[in-house]
Order: sequence, then structure tokens, then C-alpha cells
Amino acid sequence: MAGYHVPPLERLVDQFESLPGIGHKSAQRIAYHVLNMSREEAQRFAQTITDAHENIHYCSVCCNLTDSDLCPICRSDNRDKSIICVVEDPRDVFALERTNEFNATYHVLHGAISPLGGVGPDQLKIKELLKRVGDGAVKEVIMATNPTVEGEATAMYISRLLKPLGIRVTRLAYGIPVGGDLEYADEVTLSRAIEGRQEL
Amino acid sequence: MAGYHVPPLERLVDQFESLPGIGHKSAQRIAYHVLNMSREEAQRFAQTITDAHENIHYCSVCCNLTDSDLCPICRSDNRDKSIICVVEDPRDVFALERTNEFNATYHVLHGAISPLGGVGPDQLKIKELLKRVGDGAVKEVIMATNPTVEGEATAMYISRLLKPLGIRVTRLAYGIPVGGDLEYADEVTLSRAIEGRQEL
Repeated sequence: MAGYHVPPLERLVDQFESLPGIGHKSAQRIAYHVLNMSREEAQRFAQTITDAHENIHYCSVCCNLTDSDLCPICRSDNRDKSIICVVEDPRDVFALERTNEFNATYHVLHGAISPLGGVGPDQLKIKELLKRVGDGAVKEVIMATNPTVEGEATAMYISRLLKPLGIRVTRLAYGIPVGGDLEYADEVTLSRAIEGRQEL
Repeated sequence: MAGYHVPPLERLVDQFESLPGIGHKSAQRIAYHVLNMSREEAQRFAQTITDAHENIHYCSVCCNLTDSDLCPICRSDNRDKSIICVVEDPRDVFALERTNEFNATYHVLHGAISPLGGVGPDQLKIKELLKRVGDGAVKEVIMATNPTVEGEATAMYISRLLKPLGIRVTRLAYGIPVGGDLEYADEVTLSRAIEGRQEL
């Protein structure tokens, strides 16, 4: 807006616009919402960001996000520690936990191998995974990386490291999503579903 | 997620979810983005919110947002102070300034009269408008409230207060939007466009 500058407001809008999935209009709307908050609410908002950033770190075992040394899953005695499910992102742990059918532990890589994106194996939490597997208590590692080129490459890379150690390495099944429509399934998914067909 | 609680993370997600236009998934995505920021970036984010909240207040003349006593428009000598354009929201000022054709001043009401929403004339900056108009230097007040029931009611209410003072009160023209399509224009807009037809 020519000639009309309110620097603290512009900085606030820019800050929100830099967040993922928020465009200029939404950022403006949010900035005005923040300005309409009470002083206490605005301070609590700022404090929540600082708190989260200071208190959340990686679990020393599985590298998931936690505010204590071990995450609740690694701390639990009811979890099967002999099975590790390897995921790319903390959000994937949330997704798998929602099934309520999985009682093993996780390992969060925080990314996937991507030569184009400049992410190599050293930037991922692969060393930490090998350390966990090293003590011999782990029987199976389930690769649950995303069904993308990067996720596949990461799964292959890790499975090659683990197989010589005599550990069973598995991969989540590919196929048509439940409730989906065959007509709209893509060719690759369909051919994977045919390959992976099971006895009835 | 049953059994997995990271309170600072949950508070961060809840905080973003409470912002307008952000659902749970987006809030999660933004929260992880914030956690991936550097410590300095996160502190700057928190500081931007506190700064904006502490430094931005209403212009003592037009009630628009500013970080000094007068907003840049009220401070400017190049603005025609005899015409005041009354809007509901600071964002409306930005929209009108984008036309680059308007050289008068504004007055921001910060809302519209809405009996259902519990907003009466006393909650709006109407007293401040009457004070500005009182000194006799103002010749015209342009009502640029939104074309909604609330905006119309507010415009009518204010025009009844101003007309006895001998001030010209006008309203933004209704009609079909430029670049729009007659076929898709709604009936009310079309009939307003016919009513307001002008000589060629």
C-alpha cells in the first residue's frame, strides 16, 4: 500500500505469510486476528511458540518429538520393543498410532534420502537406528517410509544395511485404499495391488 | 493420539488451530514448521507477535492501525481532509488505497452494527467520527461499509446522524463488478446496477 507503512504490522503479516500453506490474504487475516487478541492472549501465543521450541527435542531412543528424555512410546512397558517401524516424519507416527492396532516402537528418520534435495543418509537418523538394532533385541524392522521415489530409496538403503545383521526387514503393503474406487485408482497402485494379491 | 502426549506441542497446535482459516491438519503442519525453525527464528516469531501487539494502536484521528500517534494518511499534507471515507475495517483502507485514485482521508469504524452479533453503535468508532465532523472543515462523508445487511444498517445510521449537520453523505456505487460476467451476476446486484444506470 503506497505511502502507508506500519512496520510492526508488516513484519507480523510477513511472518505468517512465511508459514507453510498461508498466502498473503490469510496472513493479513491472521495478523488482524492477533491484533484483536487481548494483551494476555497475544503474550500466551508468543510464549507457546518459545516454550514449544525450547522444551521439545528428539527422544534419545526413537528420535520422535518429546518434552522429556524418552518419548511416551519408548517409556512404555506395554510396547513390543523387538519390532521397530521406521517412518520419515513425526506426523507419520501419529497416523500409525491412530490405527490403534500397532503395539511396537517407532524410529523417526526426519526426512528421506533425496539427492536432488541435497539430503543424504548422514542427515537422517540412520546411525541412531543402527545403534538400536545393534544390541540384538530387535527382530523386525518395518519400513513405513512414504510411497515416493525418495521414500523407496530410503527403505532400500536401510534394508541393505540391516539385512546382513540377520534382521527381518519388511515394507508396508501397497494396494488400493479401503473405501477407494477401482475406477479412479492409478495404474501403478493397481499393478502393485495385483502383484500383492492374497488368498481368500 | 492415544497415550502419546507432548503438551508443549499440543498447545502449539491448538494455538495455530484457533487462528482464522486454519484447520487441524494445517495447524499441525505449521507447528512442525515452527519446531524446525532455528532458535533465533522462533524467538523472532514470538517477538514479532509481542511487538506488533504492543506497538500498534489506533490513529488518534481516523482510528486506523498505526505505530505512531497519527497514521501516515492523517499526517500527510497531500490529503484532502474535507472528505472522509468511512470503512468497517483497516483492511478496507488497504483495498481502497490500492486504487491509487483516492486522495481523501478515512475513518475506520472497527465493525458494523449487528444486533444479532451484539454490536451496537457504541462499540463502533462513531463518536470519534462525529468529533472529526464537528469542527466544520468536513464537506463530504463517503460511506464505504460492506454491501451487507450490517454494513447497510451502519451506513443508514451514520447518515442520519450526519445529515442534520449539513454534511453531504454519499455511498459507494452498487453495480456489476468490472471484468465480471452478467450471466453470473446475482439478481440483487443486477437490479441495483439497473437502478444506478448512468448516461453514456
